[in-house]
Amino acid sequence: MPTRPSSGVSRRGLLSGLAALPSLPGLLVATTTNAQAPAGVLPSWNDGPAKQGILDFVRATTDQSSKNFVAPEDRIATFDQDGTLWVEHPIYTQAMFALDRVHALAPQHPEWKTHEPFKAVLSNDPSALAHFTERDWAEILFVTHSGMKEAAFLEIAGQWVATAKHPRFKRLHTELVYQPMIELLDYLRAHQFETFIVTGGGQDFVRVYSQRVYGIPTQKVIGSSGAKKYEIKDGKPELMRLPKLFFNDNFDGKAIGIDLFIGKRPYAAFGNSTGDQEMLEWTGAGEGARLKMLVYHDDAQREYAYGPAGGLPDTKVGTFTRALFDEAKSRSWTVISMRSDWNRIFAWE
Amino acid sequence: MPTRPSSGVSRRGLLSGLAALPSLPGLLVATTTNAQAPAGVLPSWNDGPAKQGILDFVRATTDQSSKNFVAPEDRIATFDQDGTLWVEHPIYTQAMFALDRVHALAPQHPEWKTHEPFKAVLSNDPSALAHFTERDWAEILFVTHSGMKEAAFLEIAGQWVATAKHPRFKRLHTELVYQPMIELLDYLRAHQFETFIVTGGGQDFVRVYSQRVYGIPTQKVIGSSGAKKYEIKDGKPELMRLPKLFFNDNFDGKAIGIDLFIGKRPYAAFGNSTGDQEMLEWTGAGEGARLKMLVYHDDAQREYAYGPAGGLPDTKVGTFTRALFDEAKSRSWTVISMRSDWNRIFAWE
Repeated sequence: MPTRPSSGVSRRGLLSGLAALPSLPGLLVATTTNAQAPAGVLPSWNDGPAKQGILDFVRATTDQSSKNFVAPEDRIATFDQDGTLWVEHPIYTQAMFALDRVHALAPQHPEWKTHEPFKAVLSNDPSALAHFTERDWAEILFVTHSGMKEAAFLEIAGQWVATAKHPRFKRLHTELVYQPMIELLDYLRAHQFETFIVTGGGQDFVRVYSQRVYGIPTQKVIGSSGAKKYEIKDGKPELMRLPKLFFNDNFDGKAIGIDLFIGKRPYAAFGNSTGDQEMLEWTGAGEGARLKMLVYHDDAQREYAYGPAGGLPDTKVGTFTRALFDEAKSRSWTVISMRSDWNRIFAWE
Repeated sequence: MPTRPSSGVSRRGLLSGLAALPSLPGLLVATTTNAQAPAGVLPSWNDGPAKQGILDFVRATTDQSSKNFVAPEDRIATFDQDGTLWVEHPIYTQAMFALDRVHALAPQHPEWKTHEPFKAVLSNDPSALAHFTERDWAEILFVTHSGMKEAAFLEIAGQWVATAKHPRFKRLHTELVYQPMIELLDYLRAHQFETFIVTGGGQDFVRVYSQRVYGIPTQKVIGSSGAKKYEIKDGKPELMRLPKLFFNDNFDGKAIGIDLFIGKRPYAAFGNSTGDQEMLEWTGAGEGARLKMLVYHDDAQREYAYGPAGGLPDTKVGTFTRALFDEAKSRSWTVISMRSDWNRIFAWE
């Protein structure tokens, strides 16, 4: 059962701190607000190896006297989105958007009533969705994301994001961002790190809300994208969205995408699935201090438990497999336990 | 013959200013340092429509009381490189790099002695180069830019940039940047514009020196790029450069590239050739104040005269055609005359 401490100190962190302490009452206060973790820094993070790893990394890379000091223009931090910055269950958010769009567009496509995968979507059968192939998803994504002007898509996506609610939490998806990660983004930016989203999801979809929700402008959102065509229509230039994948920003694509869009190796990278493995490998292969962290979903009560921690089916955007766990251990990546390392998951808790 | 005034006031600008003046000696001083163009701002620009256009645009977009005020996070300015920020004659700089690399690699390729286009390159026959097809150039670019690790290419390009000199000016290519454009980049950044390079040339090549020369970090350099492959070699991840075009950032590709990398329409765009036409169109199609400028090479004495202004052959990266001139006029784009609008072209003059 997950611990839900109401203060910024976790049971695990407090106990391990106490074990190392001589029994002098005065020292207890000093330890819970020690120099490495000043009060008010990353308040939703419990004391422990994950929080300490972040604090140590930032000190090592930003203290001018450190041998691992990094010039401000090279301070790049990259974040996966789905499952790392916000909830990706029961299916990732953009897939929910696509399914809603299939329903909205169905009146114009009577043929969908008998044509898979649309028939299954329209029948609202969740068990059918679980068996969709990559090709099924591609068909759903193309029909809902292309064949229109860029501006039209952004308008449709923006309206959906402003109104659609999560089936379990009954809140806007943009309220389902992880408060500890928002604090981490702010903390890194306060230390002159540039924070980028590197998502396997659609770049344009995330750009609709990235500034407002994460403080990350469109030009720092790297993601998967479809091909576009430049056309002059009635004397006005337009970008038309084509039903064709241009860049798949997942797995090895994340390392390639970082090189393509940023041109620098990150010093810190955060993910939660096999789709993030190459991003963390690429980050870790650089010299000096590099922070590599995986968010592990082991809190069925407050959020979800999946991967080795739980019995939920894998999401379509990648999974936290046993092999990824082993890789993390062998490469000394830090695994963030949502249950133990975060005393708060959502801002509204 | 070009005018070369030694002060910040051009003959043309001074004369037109005098014509409108009553004969009061006191006013002359006030006019040459009027409120729109305070002393010290854009000093290498002569007073005239181009400089005034820049000053008016910046005021309109950054003055909070202006109806065309633009929030700082949306202040995007995009610059072509070759012929807009630095010299692109007799051929563009990266092509010179590629030709030098053919010479350097020739000992490992005895077959090049009889195989075109390499035979022509090795014979140092400039007239042959003028007849190279796009396919010839592609072959030269692939053989000199791919088949190696990313890090190896950056090292080779960096060494070339640090030592190779321009055939006419006998200076490093990085000294052949246009001082008025450097001042313009600084001026826009001082007003919270983000400045991006959007080049038809190779993204990775430009990124080697963009921070040092233009103050533009790699993550704000958008250009043409080759495909890359992520590989684990001896346990270490590497990005390998493949002999295959991934993205052609020229013509319509510039509008598409801006959308892909930035996700916002620029408020200001600067180019010099047909390859920049769609970038300026895309910029100009936005609402509010949008600055669209073309650098026109009409100064054979201090730099080069080409396009309608001169008899030099077209460069491979695009040309300033008569049609582009007409387009500029019909869309009210500002044409910057290097001869008349710039009192200094290079910092070392």
